[in-house]
Amino acid sequence: MKNFILTCVACASILVIAHPCKAQMDVPTQTEAFPYTVTEDTPNRPNLSRAVQRSFNDYMAYRPEDNPLFSSFKYTKLEGLDYNNGDGTLSRRDPSKVIKVGDKYYMWYTRRETKVPPIGAANAAKCDDETPSTDWDLAEIWYATSDDGFTWEEQGVAVPRREKPYAGHRSVSTPDILVWKGRYYLYYQAFTEPSGLKGDYCPVSMSSADSPDGPWVHTNGEVIATGKEGEWDQFAVHDPYPLVHNGKIYLYYKSAFNRPDKLWVANGLVTADSPEGPFVRCPQNPVLSSGHEVVTFPFREGLAAIVTNDGNEHSTIQYAEDWINFDVASVISLTPAAAAPYVVDAFTDTKNGEGISWGVCHFINAGKPGKGHSIIARFDCSLQSAVNDPYFKSPHLRFDPSVYFSNGLSKDKKNQRAQAAQTTKE
Amino acid sequence: MKNFILTCVACASILVIAHPCKAQMDVPTQTEAFPYTVTEDTPNRPNLSRAVQRSFNDYMAYRPEDNPLFSSFKYTKLEGLDYNNGDGTLSRRDPSKVIKVGDKYYMWYTRRETKVPPIGAANAAKCDDETPSTDWDLAEIWYATSDDGFTWEEQGVAVPRREKPYAGHRSVSTPDILVWKGRYYLYYQAFTEPSGLKGDYCPVSMSSADSPDGPWVHTNGEVIATGKEGEWDQFAVHDPYPLVHNGKIYLYYKSAFNRPDKLWVANGLVTADSPEGPFVRCPQNPVLSSGHEVVTFPFREGLAAIVTNDGNEHSTIQYAEDWINFDVASVISLTPAAAAPYVVDAFTDTKNGEGISWGVCHFINAGKPGKGHSIIARFDCSLQSAVNDPYFKSPHLRFDPSVYFSNGLSKDKKNQRAQAAQTTKE
Repeated sequence: MKNFILTCVACASILVIAHPCKAQMDVPTQTEAFPYTVTEDTPNRPNLSRAVQRSFNDYMAYRPEDNPLFSSFKYTKLEGLDYNNGDGTLSRRDPSKVIKVGDKYYMWYTRRETKVPPIGAANAAKCDDETPSTDWDLAEIWYATSDDGFTWEEQGVAVPRREKPYAGHRSVSTPDILVWKGRYYLYYQAFTEPSGLKGDYCPVSMSSADSPDGPWVHTNGEVIATGKEGEWDQFAVHDPYPLVHNGKIYLYYKSAFNRPDKLWVANGLVTADSPEGPFVRCPQNPVLSSGHEVVTFPFREGLAAIVTNDGNEHSTIQYAEDWINFDVASVISLTPAAAAPYVVDAFTDTKNGEGISWGVCHFINAGKPGKGHSIIARFDCSLQSAVNDPYFKSPHLRFDPSVYFSNGLSKDKKNQRAQAAQTTKE
Repeated sequence: MKNFILTCVACASILVIAHPCKAQMDVPTQTEAFPYTVTEDTPNRPNLSRAVQRSFNDYMAYRPEDNPLFSSFKYTKLEGLDYNNGDGTLSRRDPSKVIKVGDKYYMWYTRRETKVPPIGAANAAKCDDETPSTDWDLAEIWYATSDDGFTWEEQGVAVPRREKPYAGHRSVSTPDILVWKGRYYLYYQAFTEPSGLKGDYCPVSMSSADSPDGPWVHTNGEVIATGKEGEWDQFAVHDPYPLVHNGKIYLYYKSAFNRPDKLWVANGLVTADSPEGPFVRCPQNPVLSSGHEVVTFPFREGLAAIVTNDGNEHSTIQYAEDWINFDVASVISLTPAAAAPYVVDAFTDTKNGEGISWGVCHFINAGKPGKGHSIIARFDCSLQSAVNDPYFKSPHLRFDPSVYFSNGLSKDKKNQRAQAAQTTKE
């Protein structure tokens, strides 16, 4: 609605101010029909269809090729991280944003190394202290560094599991990093039971350090509690993702609600004046109706979000000038799961966000059946405010036909449809 | 805008009529925050973020799982069609809508069988009468039939190339079918020169028959000419796609314009009272700002479109109650190229379109380099007004990691980014 009004005002201004004699102008190349060549006047034509109006009003450019918030995504295996030959006993997933400190890039991530692969959330009641239910059960937070973002060296544990009864004694996972006044803060999910026992329920805890290499000091207790009974986030605050904006910490998170029949995954915002909190919930929560993980980054005067996997607006990039009310800015394909970009201005309280060109993500289906584990990979893109790299700007994505056929019908569904076809009326 | 106003009216009505005492109601489970369980009242809450407002106002359901215009797409190889062992001399592509006549499903398509594979649009000037420039040069329109939609039997040629100097003497391609008052009409692109010589320029011709098995009678001349000089469709009317609506023929088509720098591909509409025309251009053209091929089908009281490949709104399904002004209804992934659904009510002038559950499409990258050709395949989906098949309703699409890595950076781009990474400031 806001966009529409702004557009009307803008159109009216152009008509009245820039072209006071438009009606009397004789423009021989202008025809009644939509023109072959688009000019500055084209958005002011009468009779534009709603789709073409959106082209001019709702996107940063009328072509994705010129849209700074459109990109394709390219993927590269990381060098330097092994996975016990893929036997399912070693997993890395849910990386943090990448930050650069001195000459080194840093990322933190969920690392599980267990004697056996996960036995499944449905079997959580059978888990002992050495048997993981899910891929993120019995995990710790480790970190790795890199000179170039392609080759990474694992440095060791950052946040181990805590002693009982503290939150995080069962597992700590899904970290993200904040840098605030020269100190480093890791926010992460802190489990007190095997994931799957009642759900995937946990609050957010935090550890801090003077150096990205630690040592990390636990903050006692939950830093962000789950919501009150009856609230959308009453059971889970997942995927904490902190940024700095307007002198405050803006922390986005995910929660799943509306169970059992109509599961809805959405993302909310809490803000705080200091890393220890208190974190205040945004009254407009949830702020993103879609997206399985929160991936946001400052962009120009506002905030952009990569929205993946869940919801009507999965596979979109969205933009919110006020960091709260998002509009769809583009549609994307082959999206990175659990994307964690290198956000150069995540903590600078920028008013002119640069955007992102690469990051890390994970693939949770790296292992063979029964040997499930995840791997961390790199993605590259061009979602930059000052650079438009045509290498990443084609919306055409064409896989080998075998990729489509591997995404085929089950035998049962195929038989069902073949039979139905033969009884369909003309 | 219309949606917004309708929504406001609807919301106001609910507030005033259905819940006259809402402000005084004491609902113990309602909290200040967004609720865990969504109810009929939830869309009326204050403080909804713009994304959540869209969930309730802009989609047919707030979850894609319940959205009749959301679907995943599954792919199956067709049985019964061979391709000269993939040597590039035989190609099938750009199928028509599928129709059922009696017990048989019919499809028409572009078929090229040439002594050599295409030598490329850039080499069009070197082409003789036996050497194709593009995959759709020197083509004819053939057809195949099927009992179940999975196994097809090629029946032979429907529309051969014409004699000189008639449009279509060089190639006829990209057919679609209309059934009108018991007679069958094929619309297709009619080339008089090798595609690529000046562009991919052609008008639309038409042939008709009393039976889907022919014989097909040429209509002399162009049935839909290209636009006037300076108009968006001055060079091409591609991918004709006829339906019947409001007692008229509604024919959607594609054109590319805004060359050379800012190529834009969009889709328009022409209507006619009879298959021979005259076809009148819709004043709101282009009606779809995105999509490389036109794929539309009656849905409930309006028209739905599958939008692929090109434009800001590639990879969406859209809906237009008036068959002209489309809104985005869902975001889709792994979209079918040149999709041609089985549209049971394409020509019944329905006021309650059933939607689609399968169709055919093509893959243009089926051949090895130097042996380029296309294949026709089947897609399945659930875009049905009265059926919600959960098999097709998950927005999660997860490929094997190898698919992502095969979509990786070029060596040059990787080196460029690795070097840039090492000079990036902290």
